[in-house]
This record gives sequence, structure tokens and C-alpha cells, in this order.
Amino acid sequence: MPSPLSNIPAIVVARLPLYLRSLNILAESGSTVISSAELGARLGITPAQIRKDLSFFGEFGKQGTGYDVLYLREQLKNILHLDQQWSVALVGAGDLGRAIAQHGGLGERGFRIVAIFDQSTEKIGEQIGDIPVESMDLLPIVVRRRQLQLAIIAVPANRAQRAADVLVASGIKGILSYAPIRLHVPDTVQVRYIDPLIALQEMTYYLGG
Amino acid sequence: MPSPLSNIPAIVVARLPLYLRSLNILAESGSTVISSAELGARLGITPAQIRKDLSFFGEFGKQGTGYDVLYLREQLKNILHLDQQWSVALVGAGDLGRAIAQHGGLGERGFRIVAIFDQSTEKIGEQIGDIPVESMDLLPIVVRRRQLQLAIIAVPANRAQRAADVLVASGIKGILSYAPIRLHVPDTVQVRYIDPLIALQEMTYYLGG
Repeated sequence: MPSPLSNIPAIVVARLPLYLRSLNILAESGSTVISSAELGARLGITPAQIRKDLSFFGEFGKQGTGYDVLYLREQLKNILHLDQQWSVALVGAGDLGRAIAQHGGLGERGFRIVAIFDQSTEKIGEQIGDIPVESMDLLPIVVRRRQLQLAIIAVPANRAQRAADVLVASGIKGILSYAPIRLHVPDTVQVRYIDPLIALQEMTYYLGG
Repeated sequence: MPSPLSNIPAIVVARLPLYLRSLNILAESGSTVISSAELGARLGITPAQIRKDLSFFGEFGKQGTGYDVLYLREQLKNILHLDQQWSVALVGAGDLGRAIAQHGGLGERGFRIVAIFDQSTEKIGEQIGDIPVESMDLLPIVVRRRQLQLAIIAVPANRAQRAADVLVASGIKGILSYAPIRLHVPDTVQVRYIDPLIALQEMTYYLGG
């Protein structure tokens, strides 16, 4: 089951981390069983949608008894390949890069920044936490040697595409970008964006003029 | 129409900024007309869903002719109350706060950080761009005097709830939080989260073990 099933809609996959987050919160608060109705109410998703989403991956509960929180959490972690630690390259050692490198939640949840790159000679050699900032010139070697698959881009918009190109050429398969531009990458590479605008615009709907 | 319609599902509202982002890209590339099928293909949303979402707010296109890009963009901006400039308070002047304050995309799209607060006496008085960092003690006064409705939280997890409490007590109605914890606020306050974990976990599904 842990190998990705290509016929599963991306929108379904995108909901799995939300389910996992809710299950983590439930597990930490000591809940042992949750119904699709309760889970749905927490997430604003219909119970039918939750059951359908999970049915792509197997049978995780019996009709009428709800899901076992710890079991479903483990299964979701397996499906999302979170049963292992992920090593991540970070491009950009400015304010944003520093903040990301020191983000408590990433390490706790299995994503460890193991290498940091910047093009600025002023930043190269600095330490962020216990990681030295390395030259962008070394990126291809380090990424290949450590067989890194994931990277985070935290450089300004005008340098983000170049960073993505270097990452992709070095073998990176998944990029999380904080830069406010759309990146062009091959279909074989996953890209996701952190975009505060989308969240702000969703709130102004409710705030009124 | 610009006043929020309370019977519209939150999930529909959450898609409007995505439509707007695509329309901005289309407008910038000179496109004048787009069908729901083309817009759907860009976003991974069915054309029927797009037509249904937009129908909550009015008639924006004729069957078979597609949507006028600039007209639909203006209408969405009105619906989302983006026909005005939004002033935003920022709490946290650390690495992350500095990065957010200098994020190019926010100002361009109508969100201007106008006040920055921190509890650290070392940071108070510093300038970020042209904005001085002020003491958290001044937050209630500044937020009320400037009638701010939106705030961004960029403090560590263990200070985020306290920041949210002060913001809510001062009249803030919408909070975007970068801290990796769930905030407790009254139902009348909107909260959204920037959560890199969700995006990373979605990618590891595709990366395999």
C-alpha cells in the first residue's frame, strides 16, 4: 500500500494531511475512536467525502463503530510515507530562510533541514542552528550525495525560478516555495506554494468593506 | 453584493482567491476570455464546480461564451472586498516577522503592514522597512486608533495564543498565524494558518519511501 496509487485524485491526496493533523490532535487529547461525522465536523468536510477518500486506500473502520484514532493515524502516516524521517534542503538564508530552519514544528513531524544554501558570500559560512550555510555552487553535489528529494525555496521572487532549476537538475523531486511566483518545473516534480495572500483574501470576504 | 452572504459554504469562499489568482495570471498574460473548462483545468477543479461556485454570487458569463477575464476578476475582487487597501498589524519582529514585513507580494495585492509589535525590548525601536517596531503594550491603542481588522502572528508557538488574545481584545477580526499551534478565538474572528507541514506531507505521498 505505501507505493503511490496513480489513479487517486490529487484533491483526495491533498486532504490526507488534514485528516492526519486532526488525528494527531485527537490522539494527543486522548481520543481513541472517531466517527466520520465527527471528523467531518472538525474539518468542514462531509462524512461521505471522508469515507470515500479513505476507501481509495482500504478499509479503516467498520460501519457504525467509527475509526480507531491511532490505527487510522498510523495508516495515514504510511500512505503519506511519513513512517520515515525526511531530509530537506533549504535554499535562501535570509530572514525567511532562518525562520524556516528554526521552525519547531517541522522537525517534530519528521522533516529535518539538513543543508542550507545561499548565493551571498556574506551568508556563506554562517551557522543557522547547527547547519552551516553553503554556496549555491555546492548544491548539486550535496543534494546528490545525500540523495535529497525535498527542498524549500526561501529566496526573493526574482531568484526563485533559478533556484528551482538548479534543484530540479540536481535531482530534487518536491519543492515547497515561499516565493510569490509560479515556478516552471517538469511534470515529474511536485511543487507546492506557501501563499499568505490566499488566506488573507479568504478572510476579507468575511470582514466586509 | 459586496456584503458577505452568510449562506455560502466556507469551502466555496475558500476557492474564490484561487480563481482570482488564476484570473490575475491570465489578465497579465493578455487573455481576455476563459471557459470554466480551461479555468478548471488550471486549478484541478471541475468546470461544473466552478460554475456552481460562481452562481452563488451572480451571473458572470453566458453559456458557451466563457467568462470575460477582466470583468470576472473585478467582480471577484469586489466580492472579496479587495477593491480597497487593507492595513494589517504584524505581531513578531523576529526573522519570520521581518520576512513577512518585506514580502513583496502582499503590498502589491492590497495588504499593507502598517504596524509591527514585539515584546522584546531589544527589538522595540528597530525599523523594518519604514515601520518602527512597537511594544506589545501599545498594540491595543494602535489597533483601535487605526481601526485595524487584520493581523498576522509571527511569534513562536508558546506566545501565539497570548498574541491572539490581545489582538482579539483589541478588535482584530481576522488573524493569519504562522505559529504551529491551533488558536482559540471567538466565532466572530476568522483565523487562517500558514502550515508548511501540510504541503510537505502532500508531496511525500508522491515521492515514495
